[in-house]
Amino acid sequence: MTTREMLVQAQSAKAALACAGAEKKSAALLAMADSLERNTESILFANAQDMDAARGSMSEVMLDRLALDAGRIGAMAEGVRQAAALADPVGQVLRRVERPNGLVIERVSVPLGVVAIIYESRPNVTSDAAALAVKSGNVCVLRCGKEAWRSCNAIVTALREGLEKAGLPETAVNLVQDISRDSARELMTASGLVDLLIPRGGAGLIRACVENATVPCIQTGTGICHVYVDAAADLEKAAAIVNNAKTSRPSVCNAEEVLLVHEAVAARFLPMVKKALVDDRAAQGKPTVELRLDSRAAAVIPGVPAGPADFDTEFLDYILAVGVVKDVEAAVEHIARHSTGHSDAIVTEDPAAAALFTAQVDSAAVYVNASTRFTDGGEFGLGCEIGISTQKLHARGPMGLEELCSYKYIVRGNGQVR
Amino acid sequence: MTTREMLVQAQSAKAALACAGAEKKSAALLAMADSLERNTESILFANAQDMDAARGSMSEVMLDRLALDAGRIGAMAEGVRQAAALADPVGQVLRRVERPNGLVIERVSVPLGVVAIIYESRPNVTSDAAALAVKSGNVCVLRCGKEAWRSCNAIVTALREGLEKAGLPETAVNLVQDISRDSARELMTASGLVDLLIPRGGAGLIRACVENATVPCIQTGTGICHVYVDAAADLEKAAAIVNNAKTSRPSVCNAEEVLLVHEAVAARFLPMVKKALVDDRAAQGKPTVELRLDSRAAAVIPGVPAGPADFDTEFLDYILAVGVVKDVEAAVEHIARHSTGHSDAIVTEDPAAAALFTAQVDSAAVYVNASTRFTDGGEFGLGCEIGISTQKLHARGPMGLEELCSYKYIVRGNGQVR
Repeated sequence: MTTREMLVQAQSAKAALACAGAEKKSAALLAMADSLERNTESILFANAQDMDAARGSMSEVMLDRLALDAGRIGAMAEGVRQAAALADPVGQVLRRVERPNGLVIERVSVPLGVVAIIYESRPNVTSDAAALAVKSGNVCVLRCGKEAWRSCNAIVTALREGLEKAGLPETAVNLVQDISRDSARELMTASGLVDLLIPRGGAGLIRACVENATVPCIQTGTGICHVYVDAAADLEKAAAIVNNAKTSRPSVCNAEEVLLVHEAVAARFLPMVKKALVDDRAAQGKPTVELRLDSRAAAVIPGVPAGPADFDTEFLDYILAVGVVKDVEAAVEHIARHSTGHSDAIVTEDPAAAALFTAQVDSAAVYVNASTRFTDGGEFGLGCEIGISTQKLHARGPMGLEELCSYKYIVRGNGQVR
Repeated sequence: MTTREMLVQAQSAKAALACAGAEKKSAALLAMADSLERNTESILFANAQDMDAARGSMSEVMLDRLALDAGRIGAMAEGVRQAAALADPVGQVLRRVERPNGLVIERVSVPLGVVAIIYESRPNVTSDAAALAVKSGNVCVLRCGKEAWRSCNAIVTALREGLEKAGLPETAVNLVQDISRDSARELMTASGLVDLLIPRGGAGLIRACVENATVPCIQTGTGICHVYVDAAADLEKAAAIVNNAKTSRPSVCNAEEVLLVHEAVAARFLPMVKKALVDDRAAQGKPTVELRLDSRAAAVIPGVPAGPADFDTEFLDYILAVGVVKDVEAAVEHIARHSTGHSDAIVTEDPAAAALFTAQVDSAAVYVNASTRFTDGGEFGLGCEIGISTQKLHARGPMGLEELCSYKYIVRGNGQVR
């Protein structure tokens, strides 16, 4: 089936999904979860084929992302069950007004319609995305990386079995069959057939979507996240935050890539950074962080001199760019020029500095005295997450079920004319 | 100044606007309104030049849209003063959650940043759009139709005088100097410099934006609006609604273009339609409505046989396509295929038919027993309107101040790490 045919077919499932009540959708999700577990064997068989094909051409880290076992399939099923338990986002009266002419105007949440998601090689994204789509009444069209296609196809086959058992159309969840680049392009340009496109992947994919998409699209994920340590910071707290934001999971978008330090505390704080991120980690046998220092930082601690690109790079690795700034205003100004608008933090005990930072830093999540690593749907209490938006239109930061919905106005009268 | 230079310059005004408090913005709006009135003479002088250039090449209706007089300038100033009186949409805590780990997460409304608006020849859009942008803390970049440029430039000059008096940067309000098509294209593709593009104009402009825009963009305005008269309709009410929706202002996007009538009442209702829209109006010396009838409607009343395009055309004129349908399901199905998702109405006294219609019709505004003409920011109680969105992402239906805002998360902790 071509991608176009799949998108046309998907339209026919929209009404059934949009009008399915909360109970029916939850029952379908539970059936989908059961079906995943029941089909463990066929999913693992498909995954073994993907793994065989990938070995040799893929790094160990990437192979680990691709690999499934019964435990991981169980975790996927558990994720689908958790989605079933979340509050239904559809049909909520978001606002109600009665006008002087007697019209009653309600703003009511509705599904977007067809949500397309382009992702890479993690098979579990398939069940996560499908679960959130079904829960929010949306039809989903999934396009995975080609190295994961057999695994994802087996997962979608299992999920569809569950949908059908629960009396929802199996075309509510679709996996693109064409794994060439053409299909991604086709999703980007399917005006009228795709209500929202969510690209989850590297900067290249996001850029391709921004440049080519004619369908509504959400930019996700790129994170050049900053931690600014103020003159009034509790330096122990600051060291713990910098360490956590950088090293707890360097490959993710909410990891810290740049440290800015107020000049008044640089001489005291930078050696603490070097101790925590380099010396202590080396002693513990953990990977150490390469510090790329501007000239003022390099005057205090040893490290690699920062090149011009280092303050504009999403390293996604054990590398941290470090700079010394004059004050909080200079930090805000640096962030305005270099941040991707994902997550940026200040560490300070000074309420005025915190207020200035939170007011002026224009990012999806702005932190005071906490690690940037908390930018996540689960950590924010949304219960789930389909991606992290770094744009301002529609949704910003972690996107949960509510952000997979639109609304419509329902206006009730008794013959009003204008 | 090139459009690109203007967009770069506009960035420098973003922070001042975003951080200006409610009082400062309101004071600026009052100063802008005063300045409009004080500069009446220079605005009228510029408008006379536009009118002279346009005469001969423009229809009377279009000339009337372009024309200004002291009364219209007074009304523009009044509109700006009304914006000053609206509630400030910025800095609202939209949601607040305290997490088990002690993090306090607030979702706070913030301006989008730079909003670009492409419009046509109505000079008053200039002051309306500028007022809503300033009120919502956004910098605006306006691109008017070339036939209105001198008038709009004089208006922007006056508005900037007011901004400056109030201590806000005059670059908060900008009018594109290049009136060739290039500048529209430039706004559409200024990734990173335009946070939202709102095209207000004909279908061609909207299509050009959908196809070419790399910046976030909202589709506005195209309205093929339906009124469906059910078997259980109060036919007097229905005739009044159909008449109002079609004839009160046929040139606007919320006017009715298609009438669908349940077969059980067609024989009684269609003659009432002909009487109200044709015979009575002719007797009153008003323009009559051309009825374009499908074969079943043509069997009941005289009119023009509908061609295949008539149920897919935004006439914006005294023309109405009329069809007879089997039941409410058939009406819903017709609307799904032909509506632009703007405003669609059912007239019925049957709650079940109303419930089915409001649940299944996927449009920005769905009406029960009222005219589609109410889809408007003022009529919906938003106090104002920058446009009517027919897309689902970010905003749907009339867009007021709130829809000109995004949000950010402010997360406060005391050293939390993950």
